[in-house]
Amino acid sequence: MAKDPESLEVCCEPLLAGALSSAEAEDLAAVFKVLSDPARLRLLSMVAAAGESCACELVEPVGRSQPTVSHHLAALTEAGLLSRERRGRWVWYQIVPARFTALQRALAPQPRATSPIDSVGGNSPVTI
Amino acid sequence: MAKDPESLEVCCEPLLAGALSSAEAEDLAAVFKVLSDPARLRLLSMVAAAGESCACELVEPVGRSQPTVSHHLAALTEAGLLSRERRGRWVWYQIVPARFTALQRALAPQPRATSPIDSVGGNSPVTI
Repeated sequence: MAKDPESLEVCCEPLLAGALSSAEAEDLAAVFKVLSDPARLRLLSMVAAAGESCACELVEPVGRSQPTVSHHLAALTEAGLLSRERRGRWVWYQIVPARFTALQRALAPQPRATSPIDSVGGNSPVTI
Repeated sequence: MAKDPESLEVCCEPLLAGALSSAEAEDLAAVFKVLSDPARLRLLSMVAAAGESCACELVEPVGRSQPTVSHHLAALTEAGLLSRERRGRWVWYQIVPARFTALQRALAPQPRATSPIDSVGGNSPVTI
């Protein structure tokens, strides 16, 4: 479903399981950079809420120009977070769930050796 | 353990569970922005690998100047990703696991109503 499955291979090393190499840190930072724009996060959330979205229906709610929205959608697609499919005159976008799962794993607060389920479940041993 | 527990309240709405408001998107984007620098990711990974780290021992492996490392550590602490504690003449840093768990939840590929365990387990229904 993702148009750019190779990019899924690049990212994402677990951030907290051991010292990252420079290359690993750059790959992971690049994905976070794509996510560091509020308009892009709103676009992702709108596509997720709709199941799939045409670019044409995203311009108005996000309150940006059509070229800006197209640019953001292209960046999100290139980062493997959205997949795109042309149908007739419109391009439709969907979330790529595996990419978000990979990011979740990269952010696991415990080393990879422990179960990732423990780190996402509600009863973590952390005292805050 | 976190010195700035209030910041944990601000972030992080689930990105893919429904359309984010502008304010929610800005809060979440701000955290990703802090994570969008490779040197900061390397610092986080080094602190995690060591359990806790003194700023003094992070300068050389990350290959940046002491003021630059201090700036990055301050940004990571302000974002609630690191906690800091002064002991004698040095400041020691630790990962704030709950902050990473919150980010993992924000990136869950399914709406919050479904179990977060399903979204992190290896057998997602996604075809990539």
